[in-house]
Amino acid sequence: MKLPDSLVDTLHAVFGKEGCSTNEAKRLAYAYDNSRRNALPDAVVFAQEHPQIESLVRVCREHRVPVVARGRGTNTTGATVPVDGGVVVSFERMNRIVRIDPENRYAIVEPGVLNGDLQIALRPHGFFWPPDPTSSPWCSIGGNLACNSAGPRTVKYGSPRENTLGLRAVAGTGEGFRCGTYTSKGATGYDLTRLLIGSEGTLALITEATLKLTPKPTGLRTLRATYRDVSSAAHAVARIMAQPVTPCALEFIDDVALKLARDHGGDSVPVAGAMLMIEVDGEPETLPSAVEAVSRAARGDGLDELRVAQTAEETQALWSARKALSPAQRTISPNKINEDVVVPVSRLPELVDGIRLLSKKHDVLIVTFGHAGNGNLHVNLLPRDEAERERAHVCLAEVFALVISLHGTLSGEHGIGLVKREFMPLALQPSTLNLMHNVKAAFDPDGILNPGKLLP
Amino acid sequence: MKLPDSLVDTLHAVFGKEGCSTNEAKRLAYAYDNSRRNALPDAVVFAQEHPQIESLVRVCREHRVPVVARGRGTNTTGATVPVDGGVVVSFERMNRIVRIDPENRYAIVEPGVLNGDLQIALRPHGFFWPPDPTSSPWCSIGGNLACNSAGPRTVKYGSPRENTLGLRAVAGTGEGFRCGTYTSKGATGYDLTRLLIGSEGTLALITEATLKLTPKPTGLRTLRATYRDVSSAAHAVARIMAQPVTPCALEFIDDVALKLARDHGGDSVPVAGAMLMIEVDGEPETLPSAVEAVSRAARGDGLDELRVAQTAEETQALWSARKALSPAQRTISPNKINEDVVVPVSRLPELVDGIRLLSKKHDVLIVTFGHAGNGNLHVNLLPRDEAERERAHVCLAEVFALVISLHGTLSGEHGIGLVKREFMPLALQPSTLNLMHNVKAAFDPDGILNPGKLLP
Repeated sequence: MKLPDSLVDTLHAVFGKEGCSTNEAKRLAYAYDNSRRNALPDAVVFAQEHPQIESLVRVCREHRVPVVARGRGTNTTGATVPVDGGVVVSFERMNRIVRIDPENRYAIVEPGVLNGDLQIALRPHGFFWPPDPTSSPWCSIGGNLACNSAGPRTVKYGSPRENTLGLRAVAGTGEGFRCGTYTSKGATGYDLTRLLIGSEGTLALITEATLKLTPKPTGLRTLRATYRDVSSAAHAVARIMAQPVTPCALEFIDDVALKLARDHGGDSVPVAGAMLMIEVDGEPETLPSAVEAVSRAARGDGLDELRVAQTAEETQALWSARKALSPAQRTISPNKINEDVVVPVSRLPELVDGIRLLSKKHDVLIVTFGHAGNGNLHVNLLPRDEAERERAHVCLAEVFALVISLHGTLSGEHGIGLVKREFMPLALQPSTLNLMHNVKAAFDPDGILNPGKLLP
Repeated sequence: MKLPDSLVDTLHAVFGKEGCSTNEAKRLAYAYDNSRRNALPDAVVFAQEHPQIESLVRVCREHRVPVVARGRGTNTTGATVPVDGGVVVSFERMNRIVRIDPENRYAIVEPGVLNGDLQIALRPHGFFWPPDPTSSPWCSIGGNLACNSAGPRTVKYGSPRENTLGLRAVAGTGEGFRCGTYTSKGATGYDLTRLLIGSEGTLALITEATLKLTPKPTGLRTLRATYRDVSSAAHAVARIMAQPVTPCALEFIDDVALKLARDHGGDSVPVAGAMLMIEVDGEPETLPSAVEAVSRAARGDGLDELRVAQTAEETQALWSARKALSPAQRTISPNKINEDVVVPVSRLPELVDGIRLLSKKHDVLIVTFGHAGNGNLHVNLLPRDEAERERAHVCLAEVFALVISLHGTLSGEHGIGLVKREFMPLALQPSTLNLMHNVKAAFDPDGILNPGKLLP
């Protein structure tokens, strides 16, 4: 699609020569994301301030041209791929930390601030922002909010929805608005803040966020527990979550993943039926009792070994298996299908067993690991050739059906984007999907914001 | 308004003889709430199961008759007063705890379950549901969700929006739907769960809730700190919130409130410029260090005395002032205006000083106390006669303007209902209000759900 000249003129006027491009090389660089899908946008603009976004959306609406917001493209669902062309608006240059206010426990940031940069800026104040995707050094806060992206710490500290006070944004009409509060409590009208979080740029473009800060505990202890089999480990997870000391990470790694990590990461990776990596945080004087409480729960039928790291080096060694996993998977399958299903914690044994059966049935290698404390597992299908890739896609549909049958849901932290859209009717009733379509129309009457994503 | 016969026939058919009344005495009993406003409904029905609500909303929509959901009417904003008549649907008989699932840290409840009854049922499992309005023994979970009602514990554990996983509900079309998850993490589509929470029955009627449970710490310590003046106390609040140990209650009481409590509650209430009641919880072995951390922050310029209760009796004695406040206020003014504004914690000194000036300017007694850790203060205007009542209303508008100027908002936990609706444009931009109206239309196209509430 060629953009109308008058639209391109407006983009140039609003974003300047340096902030707007229709050059193909530039457009190619903004055509893809970590889903490995891609589609060429017709223009790329680089936002620097809120009023530009109002102008952008207004002129695009006039011409019924899609607008796709982009942070750093680290998402795995195709949520930032401009499948219908249009304008990609990159927030990478809109990356100021506007204010850090430790007294009031909030930080105001622009959407292009990197998650990792924010954490570094918060450190001297003794605070952190809990959401911690693995891509933290390279992913933007705007992207975290758009996808409700989280990480290991969610088990104790929650996802972006629990850690955001307010937003400034631009709806699909081009109208700017603020929602939420600067306070940690609010009951003044509908919660539009949480509605925008996880909406993947389909309702509004976020231009500023007021993030709720949490005091950073000064102590941390790492434990590693290996088990006879996945079922013993999964039961230990349920025991740990049923006692009062909530760990700040509770990661599960199945035997297939452990073997893979050991093949690639060496002998420091243990041989076991399954492994849990557990972290507890708190003020230093409270750590011994916390470690003891969690250890008590981790022990039980099927435990092989429980180790508590005593030094930073030991901590690193304990994490080596988890760290070796990503490169190991890439070696086997450059086309891995990376899912992040969630089930209630007590259903983890059934999930893991069921996935094993599906892996056999479809003859596709599947490794399973992830944020077990939330019941949120990364189910990675690793097809090695085209035939396996086809079988993997059939298998995936059955994985989702299994998850739903266990009262789980499609995604815990990656979102839906392009790649899981077709499965939404598995997870949500027609009436719920209808309401979501109505909400979409309420914010974006002409459907110009990130078309083709999230809703089927 | 007389209801059409065919509508009344349907109500009788759906709810049975015992579950439906158009009798005036019965209707009178459901005409009011704790706001002391009242308006007679045309019928009252008593729900017992979800399908009844679908039938109710469908038939009322056909006849364009309002439907007003009611828990136990403890709200203070008129949110359950049927100002346009219609049918009040009471959930008091739909009060089953469907399931308590400690392994997965959730409980499934019907909306009529009382908050206090749920807490008692959770106790043997070692869990609690954090929202704790003062009316806990008498208020329903459905009402808590509708108003996003909270209490002192919110400072550490959050409000209903942070403590609810999923809902079943009926939209203004009569269509039933489920939203949210049974898991502690989810990124599958728009967050309709949080959108319904705090929407005061204007978007949908909640028929079931999946509540997120939190392990109940087994230890609790109570501290009382008295200060020279309100400003010193407010600064101590900011210091306490800027260090890592978050108290599970951080309550402020100003000098006017203290004097009032002392006049009515006796000598155990201290004479001071301001007082903080602080509670810290945790596992018993962690309490001494937590008490020490909070005490360190509570100390500082203007501290008169810091006491830590050593026994249950001492704890009760320390809370006596806070407990004496409500009856004391009622004695002075049966028509107290009970607000619950919020400002960022560091603006508390300005808020308290500003309120003092407004109290003088309008010659109306105002007492200020409440959940200081969230910046959420109850500003109670106590007019003693009609002339004072008129002045109080003028004063109230200026209180709200002050709050907004300090980057605060109208309500922290009571909601908007009928009584604060006119002030919404002070707190929210026209564009934000427009979007809220669009969202309302998306759920309730004919505007039959709780008309006249929340949105101006």
